[in-house]
Amino acid sequence: MRPASNKSGPVVLLSGGVGGAKLADGLYRTLAPESLTVIGNVGDDIERHGLWVSPDVDILTYTLAGMVDAEKGWGFADETFHALAILRRLGEETWFNLGDRDLATHILRTRLRREGVRPTGIAARIAAGLEVRCTVLPATDDTVQTHVQTEKGWLHFQEYLVRDRAEAAPLDVRCEGADEARPTPEVLSALAGASAILLAPSNPVASIGPMLAVPGFRDAMLRSGAPRIAVCPIVGGRSLKGPSDRMLKAKGLTADPMGVADWYGDLLDGMVVDEADAQFEGMLKERGLEVLVTGTVMQKARDRDGLAEATLAFARTCSASPKA
Amino acid sequence: MRPASNKSGPVVLLSGGVGGAKLADGLYRTLAPESLTVIGNVGDDIERHGLWVSPDVDILTYTLAGMVDAEKGWGFADETFHALAILRRLGEETWFNLGDRDLATHILRTRLRREGVRPTGIAARIAAGLEVRCTVLPATDDTVQTHVQTEKGWLHFQEYLVRDRAEAAPLDVRCEGADEARPTPEVLSALAGASAILLAPSNPVASIGPMLAVPGFRDAMLRSGAPRIAVCPIVGGRSLKGPSDRMLKAKGLTADPMGVADWYGDLLDGMVVDEADAQFEGMLKERGLEVLVTGTVMQKARDRDGLAEATLAFARTCSASPKA
Repeated sequence: MRPASNKSGPVVLLSGGVGGAKLADGLYRTLAPESLTVIGNVGDDIERHGLWVSPDVDILTYTLAGMVDAEKGWGFADETFHALAILRRLGEETWFNLGDRDLATHILRTRLRREGVRPTGIAARIAAGLEVRCTVLPATDDTVQTHVQTEKGWLHFQEYLVRDRAEAAPLDVRCEGADEARPTPEVLSALAGASAILLAPSNPVASIGPMLAVPGFRDAMLRSGAPRIAVCPIVGGRSLKGPSDRMLKAKGLTADPMGVADWYGDLLDGMVVDEADAQFEGMLKERGLEVLVTGTVMQKARDRDGLAEATLAFARTCSASPKA
Repeated sequence: MRPASNKSGPVVLLSGGVGGAKLADGLYRTLAPESLTVIGNVGDDIERHGLWVSPDVDILTYTLAGMVDAEKGWGFADETFHALAILRRLGEETWFNLGDRDLATHILRTRLRREGVRPTGIAARIAAGLEVRCTVLPATDDTVQTHVQTEKGWLHFQEYLVRDRAEAAPLDVRCEGADEARPTPEVLSALAGASAILLAPSNPVASIGPMLAVPGFRDAMLRSGAPRIAVCPIVGGRSLKGPSDRMLKAKGLTADPMGVADWYGDLLDGMVVDEADAQFEGMLKERGLEVLVTGTVMQKARDRDGLAEATLAFARTCSASPKA
């Protein structure tokens, strides 16, 4: 028997970068700031030019701060790339786009890491500096690195996605360092006290996967009394963004809501699927999942708010029916 | 008896930042690139935001690359300061101005230092990247830090000069770490093989002083057969820029060519003084110094070229009369 959910606790969103940040943004406008905790993926983190970059946590923070480049979905709006142009002149490989404002974040993070500050504290300081009032937590303070296998061998996720533009078929995905990583006390506390746990429409394998691969993270979700709802990142058989579809296939799963349900397994109480995938509703319900069919494609701000509100209302319904 | 000068060797310029860089620039346009070696002060180096900044070496490099901000005399032309604005928002003290392009230099330098690359190699890579074809050498690969004593106590040179705008009277100047530092093989080789050694119109105490404080540096100058010529940084009793005048006084010397001659002592064969200080010619000659009286204030590019040419011609005269 699961404990009852903590109805006054925060909504906890597990999220990768661009796609998940849109839902985070909608939730941030819908909920009181103290009622939202966003847990960001760190498997995409990468050291570039000696600086520690945490792309998903940064995208979440910049988006929540209202400072993100809305068109690209990452980096600051009205960004310049003068430093990168000089780094290129100085012989550095500059395939990973780092804007001038963005570099400030990485410079501060790198200094604080060297001084021994936990990534959790660093993320909090950056969020506070940019006046983000909800809580943004890295999934772990430890280093977890998502690697992608292609015909050429194993690549860092950013090498695969950004440098090589995800052109090769992914054959497998693994999370280096996950076995030795631990969820932070802040993450465990947020999951334990949540009123709902939402899995953003991020890459299930490469963005949410690195969290679930950290020993203790999945258990903390299973122990929580909160309803656990995934917003499906696959619409009409394809990822809205990035290689989620191909990575599900690499894991032997189908690129559709059923494959997502298979990937998350017993973690889910319910799933939000797009109207384009309404035909999966019955099959998902046969698996014991609650299902909300609604528009999940977030093109405009009001789409984000609408999906956030619908998902929260759906989660409240799910929480009314705790299962054994 | 000193050895004869190596007439085919390079002209070696010892230089601090802005003022010395102007003469370096004139020499660079006057000489073949392989005939100029610039040795830059590292006593002003400072770690900011976890990045290692080497202001004098950078000013020299940017100036020689034709990329310096001509009005300020430091940093890149048309520079932006977007990263610094974000660092300020994130709670960092941002009194040390670091432009976006400039940060690229410091990011690369910091990474290479951590990887164990010598500052000499780093300076060479940055100069090559910016297509500077003469040689730019840090005075030492070791860490020497110029500190300034005021009524408030000892301050890092940049705290004194930039943060506190050199408002307090300097009471003393010292070079932390100089005793344990060593000149590099490249510096020793340049001094030994020089056709002339020029001391730029930089701060004798705070910019040239940290080089001379490194054990072996002064001896290498004394052993060289090259004529050693200082371009006086004091004109009409005042520094052209910065606190040279007050620092000479803090050392018990006069803020005029005689004080500069006293500071450099037996290092000098000759001095270039401004027409405003022609009255010192006789006294300097009584000290055994050759003297060139000419315009030394470099406001325009042609002033730099003119001073460079006049100083080189003067040095050739001096080299014709080696002393015991």
